[in-house]
Amino acid sequence: MSQESDDVLRECEAFAVQLADEAREISLSYFRKKLDIETKSDESPVTIADREIEAHIRARLAQRFPAHGIFGEEHGRERTDAQYVWVIDPIDGTRSFVTGWPIWGTLFALLRDGEPVLGIIDAPVTGERWIGGIRGACDGQGATLRTSGCTRLAAAHVYATSPDIFDAAELAVFEAVSRAAASRRFGGDCYSYAMVAAGYVDAVVEAGLQPYDYLAIVPVVEAAGGRVTDWQGRTVGMGSDGRIIAAATPELHAQILEITRRL
Amino acid sequence: MSQESDDVLRECEAFAVQLADEAREISLSYFRKKLDIETKSDESPVTIADREIEAHIRARLAQRFPAHGIFGEEHGRERTDAQYVWVIDPIDGTRSFVTGWPIWGTLFALLRDGEPVLGIIDAPVTGERWIGGIRGACDGQGATLRTSGCTRLAAAHVYATSPDIFDAAELAVFEAVSRAAASRRFGGDCYSYAMVAAGYVDAVVEAGLQPYDYLAIVPVVEAAGGRVTDWQGRTVGMGSDGRIIAAATPELHAQILEITRRL
Repeated sequence: MSQESDDVLRECEAFAVQLADEAREISLSYFRKKLDIETKSDESPVTIADREIEAHIRARLAQRFPAHGIFGEEHGRERTDAQYVWVIDPIDGTRSFVTGWPIWGTLFALLRDGEPVLGIIDAPVTGERWIGGIRGACDGQGATLRTSGCTRLAAAHVYATSPDIFDAAELAVFEAVSRAAASRRFGGDCYSYAMVAAGYVDAVVEAGLQPYDYLAIVPVVEAAGGRVTDWQGRTVGMGSDGRIIAAATPELHAQILEITRRL
Repeated sequence: MSQESDDVLRECEAFAVQLADEAREISLSYFRKKLDIETKSDESPVTIADREIEAHIRARLAQRFPAHGIFGEEHGRERTDAQYVWVIDPIDGTRSFVTGWPIWGTLFALLRDGEPVLGIIDAPVTGERWIGGIRGACDGQGATLRTSGCTRLAAAHVYATSPDIFDAAELAVFEAVSRAAASRRFGGDCYSYAMVAAGYVDAVVEAGLQPYDYLAIVPVVEAAGGRVTDWQGRTVGMGSDGRIIAAATPELHAQILEITRRL
């Protein structure tokens, strides 16, 4: 990659970190307050907090990087044919958010020519942040992230947000993966992927995700030594089918892929 | 209740709060460190952290209240025929603990003549605490806890730790309850019950629990305005069958009970 392109990425990362700080202020001002919850056409909940955070981030990005594209969960797509495209989830885990749980997050991804090159997972309640980008993967204090190094599915802790994210065929595949693992657990949204990057959870296997759910986690998990693909082993991008494997190591990823490929 | 008995409870609560502080120091010293995880005969995981916390609490209780009984998850029963019996779970949510999640907790219950009269749910990572006792229900800063007031199952957010805690017949009942609710979500262990007391989650419906999992939550949820029974509507105590309903209001509890009674 060219020096010029590196400079752009460095500038984007610094700005995204600043936006994550600003988003925290908004999200925490609404957390554990009584909010009206609307249900969208896909049955996912949305609140004024989701909308206000995304509107703020979009306005700031449009001002600073007017040529960049933006795709957010709540306010749609703009200029997504640009070289650089930001993909934003203002609150990943709105169900957790509205029920007082601390493990929802704000997600930032930056795509360059369609490839996710920067990701930020921000967890406002716990004050944690995980960044994958040009410097590798680090937490909010700059400490390097390393996946667990787990190479055997039989020894792996595997997570998914809920059995309800899978259709019947997908659920059968998740059952096969998770029953071959040491343990499985539900809950988590983006937090589970952060725990893969940080070395505590060994794999997350999910389906039904949208680009704003999965793109930010790719650079974080991969720069920490993990591997992220879809269930057929393909690199994930804006047009993926929303079935995701995030694994601590290429070896563990290969064992999970052997099962998910049956779909 | 007599003044003397009230004085005992006040003294017990103050001491338990001190023990919760001490337990936090131990649990946080092991959190996100590499630990050996053993699997017990019931397939639940245990670590040196669980054992060390419980040993510390037991030693402190035996010294301060030598006539009281103690029942803990890791080190068994002593004097459980005493008038006052402490029931301790050093780490409720060991699976969360070993995978870096912040929502495990340390649980303290005190039974008087078999009835849970004091409960503490302590969440060391987030620094939160929920207490139900002689002063009613309050958080770690002394703020009063109030359940959500939700009276309709169709409007309720319902939680369980995992579908894996239910046998087939229980799972069918949980499916019926949660499908009649506004939303359902998995994950949480004791944290979900704390969120019922605090007014964010409307109900938790679980099975397969042990006395050290459920006794501490009874005084916390009930003093906050909620209702806790087994799936047949019976008061829970040391000998309950481990099937628990914790609901924000008696009305919501009655609607859930109508379904769980079918088991």
